[in-house]
Amino acid sequence: MRVGVIGGGQLARMMVPAALELGIDIRVLGEAEDVSARLAVSSIGDYRDPGTVTAFARDVDVVTFDHEHVPQTLLRELVAAGITVHPGPDALLFAQDKLLMRERLGSLGLPVPDWARAANTGEVDVFIAEHGGRAVVKTPRGGYDGKGVRVVTSGDEVADWFEQFDALLVEEAVAFTRELAQLVARRPSGEIVAWPVVETVQQNGVCAEVLAPAPRSAGLIADRAEDIATAVAEGLGVTGVLAVELFETADERILINELAMRPHNSGHWSIDGSTTSQFEQHLRAVLDLPLGATGCHAPWSVMVNILGGPADAPLESRYPTALAEQPTVKFHSYGKQSRPGRKVGHVTAIGDDLDEVVYRARAAAASFD
Amino acid sequence: MRVGVIGGGQLARMMVPAALELGIDIRVLGEAEDVSARLAVSSIGDYRDPGTVTAFARDVDVVTFDHEHVPQTLLRELVAAGITVHPGPDALLFAQDKLLMRERLGSLGLPVPDWARAANTGEVDVFIAEHGGRAVVKTPRGGYDGKGVRVVTSGDEVADWFEQFDALLVEEAVAFTRELAQLVARRPSGEIVAWPVVETVQQNGVCAEVLAPAPRSAGLIADRAEDIATAVAEGLGVTGVLAVELFETADERILINELAMRPHNSGHWSIDGSTTSQFEQHLRAVLDLPLGATGCHAPWSVMVNILGGPADAPLESRYPTALAEQPTVKFHSYGKQSRPGRKVGHVTAIGDDLDEVVYRARAAAASFD
Repeated sequence: MRVGVIGGGQLARMMVPAALELGIDIRVLGEAEDVSARLAVSSIGDYRDPGTVTAFARDVDVVTFDHEHVPQTLLRELVAAGITVHPGPDALLFAQDKLLMRERLGSLGLPVPDWARAANTGEVDVFIAEHGGRAVVKTPRGGYDGKGVRVVTSGDEVADWFEQFDALLVEEAVAFTRELAQLVARRPSGEIVAWPVVETVQQNGVCAEVLAPAPRSAGLIADRAEDIATAVAEGLGVTGVLAVELFETADERILINELAMRPHNSGHWSIDGSTTSQFEQHLRAVLDLPLGATGCHAPWSVMVNILGGPADAPLESRYPTALAEQPTVKFHSYGKQSRPGRKVGHVTAIGDDLDEVVYRARAAAASFD
Repeated sequence: MRVGVIGGGQLARMMVPAALELGIDIRVLGEAEDVSARLAVSSIGDYRDPGTVTAFARDVDVVTFDHEHVPQTLLRELVAAGITVHPGPDALLFAQDKLLMRERLGSLGLPVPDWARAANTGEVDVFIAEHGGRAVVKTPRGGYDGKGVRVVTSGDEVADWFEQFDALLVEEAVAFTRELAQLVARRPSGEIVAWPVVETVQQNGVCAEVLAPAPRSAGLIADRAEDIATAVAEGLGVTGVLAVELFETADERILINELAMRPHNSGHWSIDGSTTSQFEQHLRAVLDLPLGATGCHAPWSVMVNILGGPADAPLESRYPTALAEQPTVKFHSYGKQSRPGRKVGHVTAIGDDLDEVVYRARAAAASFD
């Protein structure tokens, strides 16, 4: 059972422990020698180069991804050459292009914010005028962690993007009360398993905290989130882990914000909090193995990201204090050079009392400030 | 934080996930390219060769072990060269030589079976005569998994061993009601943390199952087991994980059977059942980092070993059935060539009802028969 992962970031890195436990031979195509997943790097090269990717892919049973950036043409060449790719290009297309995603989710009848395709600043202005003087504009491709997203009151504010893109996605600025994320995993043969819906807390457009399950979500909200993610996974033919980022509104509507077709920051808690982590589940799913149970070890799991500080202070240098103060918290380092604002690790606490679990997780993360 | 592990077996392999999560740079001196811990192998060679081991050790912050077989002279050379070694040679000596271990434990006043040093078959016969016509004879060095141990009624039955060893360890055949194991971890700076005492079930001298905690152990037995292991760790200056194998007798005595100064089969359950696994704890301990909490995710954890079958049937080939039947059980493969009787993996189930947890773990392991 050989799995090849394109991209050597922390998502690939966190697949390695799961692969080792299950006895899966995991290999990574890394961008450089010192990537986060360096222990499993078997070749180094550009994920946009057909020769590099094809040679890498020929040595494994299935190709999967640390990120969504492998070009469609290259993915289709792999499939045409008989290589198994999960998620496949037909599904990944909707994670790569937000305009196509919005169109497809709309045609599936799934709840999305009001949106339009804008071909110029004037069309952005029209949308803004119809939506209370404000809109969210997104580049169709290449955005992540708040990049490629602007909240604007005039089309002029995204004039520069029209130099790179034929069209932009314009959306209503949803007056959400909180953000949720629903993760599911789907096998090629159809089995789908969901984790509980979680609440995600963003700071400066970057995920800061995740509460699992989302407080006050039992019943209607949890059911609706799972139904939506299941419909997306089946409707788009997603294989592996699918993360559906959601808005919850004051009137209990749930709207789809973004999709990711890979393990996702909102699922990191599952390493320590769930019977099956998202990384193990992703590997099981792309190998078309039976999926694992997603029960929780405790009523609450809280994950807090650790963002980098000055480059000369590696995360591990704080362990003598941090580990002593929080012996029950699980610490995760991505083995990355620290840089201000960069995700370099995370912590997870689990327990019976939400306030206490939040306190422990935040205190542990604060050791690295 | 660079940890070098001498030996590339499954214990080294299972340290790798813990090292990756914590951001520890783990390197393994493997016996061959395809050892169980191959992903982390940074050099290949003989652990008895001073040049090989010293070159390996110079590149890491601390040297630790997958097994106890590195010769004392070599360990002392490393220490003399300023290399940090945990556990150190003074402690490891007692895991390497059972006669020295028995002498030392006796001098510490710890409870051990009746024993004697026998220099010839006649001395074995004398001991047998004094102990009801039966005794257990052990080679002082080189035994594991039932090898190097014989239950005999006459000294002649170990005559061959006297050709290799100057003296053998003769012990009373303890009429134990069950076997227990107590694991603790100790840092060089002194901190000690214990897991709950567990019950180990042996078949043909090999560990088959572990129940954590040991049923009906709360109170006296648990306290006594922890006190004994703590006294051994402190008395012998053990650093890292220490496993103390124990006999429990009908009159509630607890006697020390064997010691291991490394992660141990009786602690594999902790990967899935405890806040801190023995592998993570061992790494924290040998790096002199604060130790993690050892609470349990559920009232019961049960581990069952998977022994190899015919070499042409790798463990993973049974996953389509095994994973589907037991979605809550965690499966662990050591990536080893299957061979009849060889430990090639294990499964762990956790839950609230002991009988049900035992059933699930055994059913999962039986998928590989």
